[in-house]
Amino acid sequence: MKEDALPVVIRLAERGDIGAIVALFADDSLGGHGDTTDETARPNYETAFEAIAANPASHLYVAERAGQIVGTFQTTTIRGMSRRGASSLLLTAVQTRRDMRSKGIGRAMVHHAVDQARACGAAAVQLMSNSLRVDAHRFYEREGFVKSHTGFKMKLR
Amino acid sequence: MKEDALPVVIRLAERGDIGAIVALFADDSLGGHGDTTDETARPNYETAFEAIAANPASHLYVAERAGQIVGTFQTTTIRGMSRRGASSLLLTAVQTRRDMRSKGIGRAMVHHAVDQARACGAAAVQLMSNSLRVDAHRFYEREGFVKSHTGFKMKLR
Repeated sequence: MKEDALPVVIRLAERGDIGAIVALFADDSLGGHGDTTDETARPNYETAFEAIAANPASHLYVAERAGQIVGTFQTTTIRGMSRRGASSLLLTAVQTRRDMRSKGIGRAMVHHAVDQARACGAAAVQLMSNSLRVDAHRFYEREGFVKSHTGFKMKLR
Repeated sequence: MKEDALPVVIRLAERGDIGAIVALFADDSLGGHGDTTDETARPNYETAFEAIAANPASHLYVAERAGQIVGTFQTTTIRGMSRRGASSLLLTAVQTRRDMRSKGIGRAMVHHAVDQARACGAAAVQLMSNSLRVDAHRFYEREGFVKSHTGFKMKLR
């Protein structure tokens, strides 16, 4: 079977996936987020993993193909007062392994997130992407997202 | 004392503030979010208020000046895996009463959110704003936010 035809499985991340997830972020040329697979940073990731797992509104996923972790994303459902008290689903930290891009992994991840949003009655799915990631922006627009907002960030450290 | 010199008090929203908060959203010309002070919509807002109050990661605030609710915003702390497992604080539904803009209300709200983010060790504060709200964007940039991201939305209903 051609590699591109292999199924992508989206599932909740497990503790054993932490190393593979961190490797995806560490390989991100743009983020500059200080991520590293160095063992000294490992306790930080383990603490974060447990915190996400303990939060019923947040879910950390991995995309798996042929037994390998090829992508990750996180969803957080946020209930607000506007739109008559609607929820929206926030998609963050979407990352596809560099050598696995344009192979349907991102699409499978986004579809999973949108399905989850519908299932929990959310009124919208939203995400912020670094303005330099123009390829990703084209992808999100193809998937039905509207580039209607501007994203602001203030780094505190 | 001149009206502009009156202090702005930022405090957690209480159940009795729901009507005033909804009035702020209902008066938003841009959102088109279907918000209304009509009594029939009231149960939706009450349910949302209780859900936010029950979520330890999310806080709904009001800005009060001279005993009146003149603004509202919501914060949600999101723990992620990237940036070595950092948290970020998401600012949503920031709204200042139309006749009270450019009077320091927004600044007081943003400062409160940033202080809260620092206090809980968040690495960043982030927000998405409709790209048509150019006045708001200038305000956020003055307050130290960087317009580094693009915001995408998919409405589900």
